[in-house]
Amino acid sequence: MAYQFIDEQAIRSYCEAVFEKCGFSTQDSQDITDVLLTADLYGIESHGVQRLIRYYQAIQEGSIIAEAPWETVFETPLSKVIDAPRSMGQIMAKLGMNTAIEKAKQHGVGLVTVRGTNHFGIAGYYTQMAAQADMLGICMTNTEAIAVPTFGRKAMLGTNPIAVSMPADPIDFLFDVSTTVVTRGKIEVYNKNEKPLHDGWAADQTGESCTDAQQVLNHIIGKLGGGIFPVGGAAEETGSHKGYGLGLIVELFTSILGGGTTSPHVKRSGNSDTTFFFAAIDYGLFGDKTIIKKRMSELLEELRQSPKAEGRTRIYTHGEKEQESLLQKKQSGIPINDKTLSEMRMIGETLAIEPTIYNLQGQQKEV
Amino acid sequence: MAYQFIDEQAIRSYCEAVFEKCGFSTQDSQDITDVLLTADLYGIESHGVQRLIRYYQAIQEGSIIAEAPWETVFETPLSKVIDAPRSMGQIMAKLGMNTAIEKAKQHGVGLVTVRGTNHFGIAGYYTQMAAQADMLGICMTNTEAIAVPTFGRKAMLGTNPIAVSMPADPIDFLFDVSTTVVTRGKIEVYNKNEKPLHDGWAADQTGESCTDAQQVLNHIIGKLGGGIFPVGGAAEETGSHKGYGLGLIVELFTSILGGGTTSPHVKRSGNSDTTFFFAAIDYGLFGDKTIIKKRMSELLEELRQSPKAEGRTRIYTHGEKEQESLLQKKQSGIPINDKTLSEMRMIGETLAIEPTIYNLQGQQKEV
Repeated sequence: MAYQFIDEQAIRSYCEAVFEKCGFSTQDSQDITDVLLTADLYGIESHGVQRLIRYYQAIQEGSIIAEAPWETVFETPLSKVIDAPRSMGQIMAKLGMNTAIEKAKQHGVGLVTVRGTNHFGIAGYYTQMAAQADMLGICMTNTEAIAVPTFGRKAMLGTNPIAVSMPADPIDFLFDVSTTVVTRGKIEVYNKNEKPLHDGWAADQTGESCTDAQQVLNHIIGKLGGGIFPVGGAAEETGSHKGYGLGLIVELFTSILGGGTTSPHVKRSGNSDTTFFFAAIDYGLFGDKTIIKKRMSELLEELRQSPKAEGRTRIYTHGEKEQESLLQKKQSGIPINDKTLSEMRMIGETLAIEPTIYNLQGQQKEV
Repeated sequence: MAYQFIDEQAIRSYCEAVFEKCGFSTQDSQDITDVLLTADLYGIESHGVQRLIRYYQAIQEGSIIAEAPWETVFETPLSKVIDAPRSMGQIMAKLGMNTAIEKAKQHGVGLVTVRGTNHFGIAGYYTQMAAQADMLGICMTNTEAIAVPTFGRKAMLGTNPIAVSMPADPIDFLFDVSTTVVTRGKIEVYNKNEKPLHDGWAADQTGESCTDAQQVLNHIIGKLGGGIFPVGGAAEETGSHKGYGLGLIVELFTSILGGGTTSPHVKRSGNSDTTFFFAAIDYGLFGDKTIIKKRMSELLEELRQSPKAEGRTRIYTHGEKEQESLLQKKQSGIPINDKTLSEMRMIGETLAIEPTIYNLQGQQKEV
């Protein structure tokens, strides 16, 4: 696909202008933009600016409302349950993690749920907020159902990602994964390239493993049965029940504890009605933080230095790839594909943003 | 293999007698026995009475000491870090989870680590202690290294299990899995039956997937390289990095927070020097417990009732199989294989236990 490598700051100015035109405050517009741009900088294109069109449409149709009111429905010194219908996910997620961090600063642990809200981008953005506050951070969200439980044939759980961050030198540990074997985005890419799916990635309408990307997507979109397998694949022999259980644990910490809508009932369009979970843990609860962080750094280094498999030159620890991508893209610019660029121009025109801001130009490359 | 189905109570009396003869108090002997027997009742033979010989040998050689002293090295209202060298894992694990539960009763959350200790049996036993106290329970432990990180060829992380329990009707949610794709026990069973391993289960000394069970075991035992892949298998395409990261998260919560020995340095024999993590969370932190528990029960029921894959008649939720096994084995007796039975008789004779206690008799069956 053709990409243009565009300066990060230019995209930031553009996105901030879009969100301000949509009624968000300057601060909120900067916050939402930072989550989107961080995904692109990390190399997670699926959660970056290419998703802008979906947010924009949801705002236009009223599923997402700028300045949506929210309320605290339950609170203790360690915990808070927030209800935030039709809210912008990124804003409520930042508020949720900041609340967890404040509680952890005071009491050691902070646990916050936000329900009734919309897609928040990358979960790892919020756990890194905890890491930057020198805390251990955990974040989960449920999503619309796409994962088939072990021995099932109907999507019942979301991609239900889990993220965990822990401060370390020189690079924080940043784990951010879906509890499905792959994401829907990957299946869409395979479909676009007319490649067969790996066995154990997706189920057809009978619950059997299916390698036909088009068929799987048609069935997912039409809600005709089938979906994506949990991490661990199609069978108990490869650990399917482990991924299925992890997806259920995400459901427990999000919709069940937070009183939100469970994945089978989360909507794909309109106010999607997802629930987030945030935990901040002051790891000083376990002793001297300098020593604990040093131990973590040493373990990660030991893993990176351990013997490599035949033909491999590196063992990565989680967060390294993201950090390297970020440093590189701050130099090279952020790759934006032509389809996304034309969507961005359309939004810019429609909102009557300055053409100098929406007419993003970069160096063209095939990626 | 030939099994005898033996009455649960007879095995209990036998095990309690063994531990008392080894110097444990009556209460401690009952506690250790209950953990072992619960594994057998749940159908997890690998962690049941068949492991007695290993505990017995560790006690004989002084790697495990009855009444081993332990100390609190750090404590806050929400947390406790315990150092317990050469302790019996089950005793310290019960103490650890009970401490977490007490803290959660007072403050909402309790987080406890125990380091320097030995194998504790099944992690799910301890999370069920939390569930029985109407709390959400989490338990993790590191183990000696057996898991190869993604792109590596040396075992660097343990099987590093994670267990989570949440009260639900009619059956609690009980998730208890290793973060490796399979356990070493399963590879031993395949080796015994001369069956080839599944692709993506184990790595040879070069880090490539290897289906020769004997070769894999030889290399693991000789520490010649290779080991078991993380859940997600050998490649990033099947989610290897997800299981590898989960194993690292277990390491973070156990050895890193608890100041213990990390998996690459945990020993197979002698005082194995593992670290446990226990969390109890009073889910009343999130609102009315009756309502939250009901929501969890309804979600699990919805999953069980959802459409089944071709050729499948049931979708299980985690904990169901264990509960059904328990009810059945309380009727049928617990299957003990002949090798274990002869080890039990040897131990009974050596410790001069009453022959009526160690001469366990049951109904013979091939399983």
